[in-house]
Amino acid sequence: MRLVTVRIDGATRAGRVAGDEIVLLDAPDVRAVLAAGPVTSGSVPVGDSGGVMPLEGADLAPVVPAPDKIACVGLNYRDHAEETNNPLPKAPIYFAKYRRALTGPYDPIRLPPPEVSTKADWEVELAVVIGREVRNAGPDEALAAIAGFTVLNDVSIRDWQRRTTQMLAGKTFEGSTPVGPALVTADEIGDGRGLDVSCTVDGVTKQSSNTDQLVFGPAELVADLSTILTLDPGDIIATGTPSGVGHAREPQEWLWPGAVVRTAIEGVGEMVNTCVVG
Amino acid sequence: MRLVTVRIDGATRAGRVAGDEIVLLDAPDVRAVLAAGPVTSGSVPVGDSGGVMPLEGADLAPVVPAPDKIACVGLNYRDHAEETNNPLPKAPIYFAKYRRALTGPYDPIRLPPPEVSTKADWEVELAVVIGREVRNAGPDEALAAIAGFTVLNDVSIRDWQRRTTQMLAGKTFEGSTPVGPALVTADEIGDGRGLDVSCTVDGVTKQSSNTDQLVFGPAELVADLSTILTLDPGDIIATGTPSGVGHAREPQEWLWPGAVVRTAIEGVGEMVNTCVVG
Repeated sequence: MRLVTVRIDGATRAGRVAGDEIVLLDAPDVRAVLAAGPVTSGSVPVGDSGGVMPLEGADLAPVVPAPDKIACVGLNYRDHAEETNNPLPKAPIYFAKYRRALTGPYDPIRLPPPEVSTKADWEVELAVVIGREVRNAGPDEALAAIAGFTVLNDVSIRDWQRRTTQMLAGKTFEGSTPVGPALVTADEIGDGRGLDVSCTVDGVTKQSSNTDQLVFGPAELVADLSTILTLDPGDIIATGTPSGVGHAREPQEWLWPGAVVRTAIEGVGEMVNTCVVG
Repeated sequence: MRLVTVRIDGATRAGRVAGDEIVLLDAPDVRAVLAAGPVTSGSVPVGDSGGVMPLEGADLAPVVPAPDKIACVGLNYRDHAEETNNPLPKAPIYFAKYRRALTGPYDPIRLPPPEVSTKADWEVELAVVIGREVRNAGPDEALAAIAGFTVLNDVSIRDWQRRTTQMLAGKTFEGSTPVGPALVTADEIGDGRGLDVSCTVDGVTKQSSNTDQLVFGPAELVADLSTILTLDPGDIIATGTPSGVGHAREPQEWLWPGAVVRTAIEGVGEMVNTCVVG
């Protein structure tokens, strides 16, 4: 099952993908669908609302437009830790984003004006979407709490990320973070391991890896986070990015206005976003 | 004007303090009041709902139970930077908390079970509450965007805070962070400078300072954050803690089950919280 959040008439509505169409659901977004109950390939916990629209050309919002939490993980790929000369982390390195950082899977990526920063960088990531409340979970309960997976581009403003010891400032610029296009339910993806991950900029491959390179896998991250606090339906956990980011290249590379960024994960989906200033 | 969020019959309701009573308002919480328009000593943008209750003994929720954003600032007091042997920061050090970290001004502080951590520490802070949407603000617009101030105890689980380079994990344990008791409007407090700040544990003074020690003041923080993204009504910015925290003491001190923590800011209010495990 693939679920999307689509913009219609200035509001949003959840939908399920059926072939080349979106069947609209009786819920304002995917978070509301997940809060209503479990989603599998065979069942959705809310009814159809009666509308149907073509998938192609649909104005998709962030798959969860307003999650209660967005948690990101740093240095969680073996190949990315190597390229940045960092040792493998002994524990997951968490930082947050705020809701206003999110943008839709085909929306522009908003770059800061040049007087604020010119150092925007790409980071394709497999994102976990939580399906049920979970606290102090063991491995099985953690895996069962994952509703499914989506794609997230953790676009990072590197000078702001490194302005202090804490990354948050450079990770939460408004409209910088595409997420989507769809939530693909876990029964179609498994535990999120073994998936090819890629990012291209203007057709040139910049990142190409596989989630087998993850240091901490999706279920481990859910279990660990749930030791800290309760996770809620619709929460997003971005699991980290592989090697190939711009700031680790020689010479360093940054996103520019007009650049077209494609981020894809095998079996999950692909986003296409054009960079714009402001 | 003092605004509170009170728990009644399993839900919450906003109220304004009038003498020793709470006049209930036609809004579910203080965030909804702020979203409806400006609040000053002379006016509230929503009507009374008809109910009145005694202030004493009221079951107060976090003053904003579900903010869109909670931003915290590290090492923002001159005296605290000195005690932890850190240089004064050149830019504000931001990290986030999630909503589920918050608890009410007289609620228990929830400590992790001992097998997770025994290193919970106090941090009294002046917190800014945003009153209107603001982006790319200059100093005057930033100050005008502050609805008022409240007290926040940024209880920190030090071993989790220092488990990696990123503080988030140790700063967002469930039910660890009291905030309240009231939002005191900015027209009664000014710019938040020059206020005495204190924290006692079982009657022993642990922190005693003044917001004149702030490296980055409330309006500066609002302006800087608004360069990154839009701030929204009800957003909370915890401005950092002064010297006297437990982990910088010799020997180090930690909170324990049964400890009574009082956090107070001159003219803003006082919270009283008893530590419990779980």
